[in-house]
Amino acid sequence: MKPEALDEVLAELRISLERDDLNKAIAIIEALSPADQADLVEVLDSPDQLALFAHLDPADSADMLEEMENQEAAALAELLSSAQLADILDEMEDDEAADILGDLPAEKVSATLREMEEPKDVIPLLRYPDDTAGGLMTRAVITLRPGWTANDALTELRRVGPRSDSTYYLFVIDEQEKLLGVIGLRELVTAPVETRIADLMWTDVVSVIVTTDQEECALVLSKYGYLALPVVDEIGRFVGVITADDLIEVAEDEATEDMYLMVGITGEERAFDPARQSILKRLPWLAINIVTLFIAISVVDAFEAVIAGMVALAVFLPVVSGEGGNAGSQTATVIVRGIALGEVGPRDVMRSLTRELRIALVNGVVIGLGTGLVVYIWKGDWRIAVAVLLAMILNFLMAAATGVLIPLGLQKMKVDPALASAAFVTGFTDTFGFLFFLGIASLLM
Amino acid sequence: MKPEALDEVLAELRISLERDDLNKAIAIIEALSPADQADLVEVLDSPDQLALFAHLDPADSADMLEEMENQEAAALAELLSSAQLADILDEMEDDEAADILGDLPAEKVSATLREMEEPKDVIPLLRYPDDTAGGLMTRAVITLRPGWTANDALTELRRVGPRSDSTYYLFVIDEQEKLLGVIGLRELVTAPVETRIADLMWTDVVSVIVTTDQEECALVLSKYGYLALPVVDEIGRFVGVITADDLIEVAEDEATEDMYLMVGITGEERAFDPARQSILKRLPWLAINIVTLFIAISVVDAFEAVIAGMVALAVFLPVVSGEGGNAGSQTATVIVRGIALGEVGPRDVMRSLTRELRIALVNGVVIGLGTGLVVYIWKGDWRIAVAVLLAMILNFLMAAATGVLIPLGLQKMKVDPALASAAFVTGFTDTFGFLFFLGIASLLM
Repeated sequence: MKPEALDEVLAELRISLERDDLNKAIAIIEALSPADQADLVEVLDSPDQLALFAHLDPADSADMLEEMENQEAAALAELLSSAQLADILDEMEDDEAADILGDLPAEKVSATLREMEEPKDVIPLLRYPDDTAGGLMTRAVITLRPGWTANDALTELRRVGPRSDSTYYLFVIDEQEKLLGVIGLRELVTAPVETRIADLMWTDVVSVIVTTDQEECALVLSKYGYLALPVVDEIGRFVGVITADDLIEVAEDEATEDMYLMVGITGEERAFDPARQSILKRLPWLAINIVTLFIAISVVDAFEAVIAGMVALAVFLPVVSGEGGNAGSQTATVIVRGIALGEVGPRDVMRSLTRELRIALVNGVVIGLGTGLVVYIWKGDWRIAVAVLLAMILNFLMAAATGVLIPLGLQKMKVDPALASAAFVTGFTDTFGFLFFLGIASLLM
Repeated sequence: MKPEALDEVLAELRISLERDDLNKAIAIIEALSPADQADLVEVLDSPDQLALFAHLDPADSADMLEEMENQEAAALAELLSSAQLADILDEMEDDEAADILGDLPAEKVSATLREMEEPKDVIPLLRYPDDTAGGLMTRAVITLRPGWTANDALTELRRVGPRSDSTYYLFVIDEQEKLLGVIGLRELVTAPVETRIADLMWTDVVSVIVTTDQEECALVLSKYGYLALPVVDEIGRFVGVITADDLIEVAEDEATEDMYLMVGITGEERAFDPARQSILKRLPWLAINIVTLFIAISVVDAFEAVIAGMVALAVFLPVVSGEGGNAGSQTATVIVRGIALGEVGPRDVMRSLTRELRIALVNGVVIGLGTGLVVYIWKGDWRIAVAVLLAMILNFLMAAATGVLIPLGLQKMKVDPALASAAFVTGFTDTFGFLFFLGIASLLM
């Protein structure tokens, strides 16, 4: 539904709630898709949310809760009684139920699990962090044995079908629960009924381990074009699958996180979070940047006498440092993104460095010559122009080197390369930009 | 396969090719998954690629070509003969075949289509750009009629099954080809054979139009948790589906594009593209930034006399402008990403502006006070300290305003907000940073 239409429905819903006309409110909600319901209910106050959930069908509540943002869903789940929450979680896919329980306090979790009908599929999932394969997978998967016929498999499917609603692949395992192969439901349905599963299955299957990072899972799935990715535990037993739709969200979230980290916003921030939260997420980075800026200006301070002798130098300081920072951000972004997409790794240091230094040399010379020429025409002083030219070339090379080495170095130290790269790189290009420019200028005077 | 293992296989493959031992080379290739094959063949020279493709089975060639990067696949496809290419495309899903044809010259396309066995599913797809729903969808979908029974549907499935390998949903259409509903293959298989399709299908289906942008498709699919997204044409006829695995790649690519645009890299760039290409992709932006930097330093130039009177002012110029730029990048990134994820739009201008100005005021006062204090302790001149404090607060507010208004303004003008936002915002924070600082300083002198 378009945001404008949703706003109208929201207004209508609020009116019904103010009038305590819960039947009307429920009718409004039930006319929407779960995703739209979630958008709407998220913005209501807690008492209104609770009133609605007390009257909604647990299955509908489950669909809606699945669609809500993690934070919002957790806040609401915490307000519901354990019995109420258990009814809702019983209707959910087990990976989603585990995600919601994972955000609740331990007492609430155990109370809710006690009230649930089938907590046994959910409990193992609580062991894995949300952002790993184990946290993303569902255990509601249909498994077959290689010796069965297609007909046996269809019988099994009819028996357990309704409980397994997350995938259209069937997984073939042996007695030790090792994954032997996969069959698409379509191949199964169209095969002659007596065909053996072992002859139908596709054995060249790529799987991930429960501890695999979610970003890696998204890359594997998109590389191999699967709609569901099998997950095995540490000793190779098949334990569940991750479906493609969950991994699109992962790809979006990881990209957002990296973009935010590159400008120094740590942790999730959405465009309409309360301002207070955002202040604290952005402040630490601004403080770190002030420190790097002070290091950089201490260079300018050391050259105060040179600047006093020729004040025009002060005018061109921002050009050398700023443009170096821009070139460095380009390099750092390409490397950081390459690391995130699994295309650049520790063994690519020399290759990346050679490539980026070549780019920097050409762009540094082109931009440096252009800028130097303009400076000469403007100020009529060849010494300033030459200082700008040489400082820019050197600073572009510095930008390329730090833009490659800092992200790859952070990766080696197991720090997210997106986090600190931009700040460190511009720290270097500011400091060395000033040093190159004022150093060369004072030599030429 | 791990990159290290793949390197070993590559070395082995190269040795066989040098010895003209094609049987060995083919055996090496065929032992790998298509995705790994593609990684390997991409890095070979064209003559080696052609030698391999002349001996590979068309179906294997098709799998491999599908997995290759667009650029690489197009380059190779152009070298193959039309007959050879047609054999390969016949084995491909029609959306993939259309993607490859879409990157070739018109003559090659028509020659290849003439040689293909069933070009009729591919031709309509050539009308749509790669980055729209029409370009991403496959037409190999199974459609049912509402009056059929489950048994009729299974019969149809067995008849057309092998040709439709892309989805596990079946789509119900009426005589005008309007989409009536969807059935999961599992529900169909587990339903009693005489159940009517109309009673099995789920009618509350969200679809996209052929012209819908790919980014929007990814958002819709992940919002509703589908594994396949139905596509309709301009007059509402059902024409195909997009599968979730294709949209993960879209989410990754769009995020990469936005990250690149924010630092002024236009067009696709991969970490190991030839340096020459990257130089040209990065240079225009660096040139534009030089122009904004010259605008900013013309402000400094106008205050040359003030700086000559107190050279210490030159030292603190980069602090005010640089920190304003950092704050502005944070705001612009949150807004640009919010627009990309469909969370922020034209109607959110006032809401975003209020929020960002509040954040900027608090962070500006905190950072400004801290910086002003250090400046006072360092230089012992309260006028510089006060100028730094006030200029920083004003520049943070400028950063917040431009960080909101520029991306939303660009969106309104149908320009990708990621493209120019960062440069414009830092252009403003540089220029006004200098102006605020030097202006206030000269008033205080």
